[in-house]
This record gives sequence, C-alpha cells and structure tokens, in this order.
Amino acid sequence: MSAPTPNPTAAILIIGDEILSGRTRDANMYYLAGELTKLGIDLKEARVVSDDKDAIVAAVRALSGRYDHVFTSGGIGPTHDDITADCVGAAFGVAIGVRDDARALLAAHYAARGAEFNEARLRMARIPDTATLIENPVSIAPGFTIQNVHVMAGVPNIFQAMVASVVPTLTGGSPLLSQTYRIDRPESTVAGPLGALAARYPDLSMGSYPFTRDGAFGTNIVIRGVNGTDVEAAMIELAVLFPQE
Amino acid sequence: MSAPTPNPTAAILIIGDEILSGRTRDANMYYLAGELTKLGIDLKEARVVSDDKDAIVAAVRALSGRYDHVFTSGGIGPTHDDITADCVGAAFGVAIGVRDDARALLAAHYAARGAEFNEARLRMARIPDTATLIENPVSIAPGFTIQNVHVMAGVPNIFQAMVASVVPTLTGGSPLLSQTYRIDRPESTVAGPLGALAARYPDLSMGSYPFTRDGAFGTNIVIRGVNGTDVEAAMIELAVLFPQE
Repeated sequence: MSAPTPNPTAAILIIGDEILSGRTRDANMYYLAGELTKLGIDLKEARVVSDDKDAIVAAVRALSGRYDHVFTSGGIGPTHDDITADCVGAAFGVAIGVRDDARALLAAHYAARGAEFNEARLRMARIPDTATLIENPVSIAPGFTIQNVHVMAGVPNIFQAMVASVVPTLTGGSPLLSQTYRIDRPESTVAGPLGALAARYPDLSMGSYPFTRDGAFGTNIVIRGVNGTDVEAAMIELAVLFPQE
Repeated sequence: MSAPTPNPTAAILIIGDEILSGRTRDANMYYLAGELTKLGIDLKEARVVSDDKDAIVAAVRALSGRYDHVFTSGGIGPTHDDITADCVGAAFGVAIGVRDDARALLAAHYAARGAEFNEARLRMARIPDTATLIENPVSIAPGFTIQNVHVMAGVPNIFQAMVASVVPTLTGGSPLLSQTYRIDRPESTVAGPLGALAARYPDLSMGSYPFTRDGAFGTNIVIRGVNGTDVEAAMIELAVLFPQE
C-alpha cells in the first residue's frame, strides 16, 4: 500500500485571562477538536495565552508557521482588553483599521434595532487589510481569516457559528475512524498484550483509558485510523485477546 | 507605593491524543487554574500536545525555560503510549530507568492486594535519576518533580491528588482578589466607560464577559488585583457608572 496523503494539520489558540485564572472553563477546544476530527483535519496542538500582546503575537507566528490552519478563540469584542485582531495583524505585518465591509454589517444591524452604533461597537469593525470576513449569524460582528489563521469569538455559541461559517472553506482529509472496546480489567494487566498488538499495526493509534466504576477498575481501548479494514482487523484481534467476561 | 514582587508564574502542559481528537474533554487545566490562583501563582500559558516524543520534549523545554513552574498532565500510565517520563528525562538530558524507591512503593501496593507486579506495572516505576517523587494516594504509582517541572497523571482524581501533594512545596505569591459586578446591558454599551476606568487603575485587570439570559444581553465585569483597597475603590466607581436598575 502506498503511503496515504497526510491529513491537514491544525492548532487552536485560546486567548483570555479568564481561562487562565480559572474563572471560565474553556469549551471551544473540545468543540473544535470534535469538528476537525469529523473533517479529517488533525488537531495537533492547543495553546491558551493571556490577553497580552507579545504572548498573542508570538503564539500566532509560531503556530501559523507550523500547522496548516490556526483557529483562534476570544478577544474580538468591543472592550479595551479585546486585542486579538490587532495582534494578528501585527503578527503578519498587515495594517488594521475600521473596514468598510465590517462597518456596513454592524451599521445595518444596529440601525435595524434602533441601537446606537457607538465607538466601542465600531471597534468590532477593526479588521486587518487583507483578511476575509467570517460570518457571525449570532451577533453580526464578524471574525476573519488572514493567511492560515481563522480569528473567531470566544463566546461558545458565537464560536460554534463561526466554525460553521469557516468549515465549507476548508479542505479536509481522511476522517479518523475510531472504535472503542471496553475491558473490565485494570489498565496495567492490559498494557502488555496491547503494546504487542499496537506494534503489529503501526498505522493505527491505540489509546488506553483507565476508568473506575462501582469500585472496579476497567480500561477502554480506543483504536483509531483512517483505514477501516485495519481498524476492524485490530478490533477482532483485541476481542480475541480480551474476551468479554 | 513600591512595585510589588511579581507572583511566580506557571504553565500547564497537557499530553494526550484523546484530548486533541475530541474524545475526552480535559478537566485538569480548569482545576489547576483555580488552585494556582488561590496560591498567588499566575498561570500564564497552557498547551496541549499529542503523545509524540518530539512535541513533548520541545514543549517541556520551551515552557520550563519561560516560567517558574510547569505542571504536566497525562502519559505516565503503564501502556506503550505513556511516554511522558521518558520525554521529560530527555528534555533535561537526565537518564531514566526503573527506580528502587518507586518500585518499592508499587511492589508493596500490589503485594498487599495479591496482584501481580507485571512488566507493564513496573513501567510506572520509570523515573528520571534526579527527580523527586510526587505522592499518589489514589493509585500509588508516583508522579515526579525534576527541576521546575511537576509530572502528574491525567486521570482527574489522580491529578488532583498529586496537585495536593505538590502544593506544600510551592512558594506562592499574593493571591489575586476578584470581584464581579453584573450589568444588565450589552457589552458594547459598557465598553467605553469601562475602558476609561481601566486606564485609571493600571494595576488592576478589568475583564468584561458578555452573557445572554432570557433573551436579554448583559455583561459581567470582573475586577482583579492583589491590592484589595484598589479593587474596592474601582468596584465603587463601577457601581456609580452603572447603577443597578
């Protein structure tokens, strides 16, 4: 079998002091991980940094150079601590200012509601010059894509809506297939035979996840790969090694 | 007022394909963030990397050089994909092998239960030469501290128990005080006055977190700082700017 084309790779960069201080539990990494897995895009790394210009610029540069896609979450709202758009512009040396297309979207939105289009709201129309807007059907203020970086809101329902707007623009790979086998034995009694099985299937990933239920130890084995025939064959071998009791 | 001593800094490194594939939702970052905030240690960065030697070694080196403490989560169990201990040893150029102290803990544990101390279980006694063990009261297999890196299990209840074992060895800073003020108005109408207030209190952090409840937009303002008098004064100004309706 010839080597398959590797899947596109991705990273997520979560921006926000509220995550690092423990005030807010991030939900976007887990959501994006699931969506990318369905698309056959391999999420390789996640980072969380604070609302700090140097930290954001450095992380955007490092991740955009290393992976096919970078998805950012947070810091594009109307307040003084929303500095993501400026930092992403700075990371690529692209000028940023209020852009007519983004301003028009927001102006129409506020006019329709009889709400003031004030200076803080205008801040959400600040978009780097060469970026493409990402539609936000929830609260209109757009995200944007510049080079391989997709800049999105941190509020989970808006983040999810923006992911849905970006997905049609992405080229996926081979979706990862995954099967789980539950063994009612502790992980340390499963590890030996499992390691030998994994060595025979170098193209598959075999993860072992211990759990405790009703005081008894058990292990879920997850076999993942893009080749369904291989996944099936390994699952059958696993069932022979560890018959259900 | 003289500049206060800055708080110690920290990062968390979460290791595991199961987090990046979306199979498992990480719980340890959020837990550690809360614990460190109570101690006055500033969590500055979080990373998630896959079960890949190069990725783990590079992340350990980068984070341990940049922050006072690094806490790792995951990859120290008995199976073939548990490579964290070897990678942390490699990151510091320290030899690793089965260590007598760790082996003795595990041998006693399995002997007391009449369980076999097999090869997979022995793997959990692999500890870098110069490391100090971290006690694991849940399932005995220890974590370890080497230089400024604390290596802990990924299973949440074991991670939490190991954090409790490490905490007494850490020197904390000034705990961050935090107060929240709820404003029943959209964030974009709060942003202007809030930005001006934040500019007058450069030592405080003022975060703004929009929410929707029963179809209406609101904003929680969180004022954080180590100086309680300043936090109080800013909260009073905030209440004058945005009286409760």
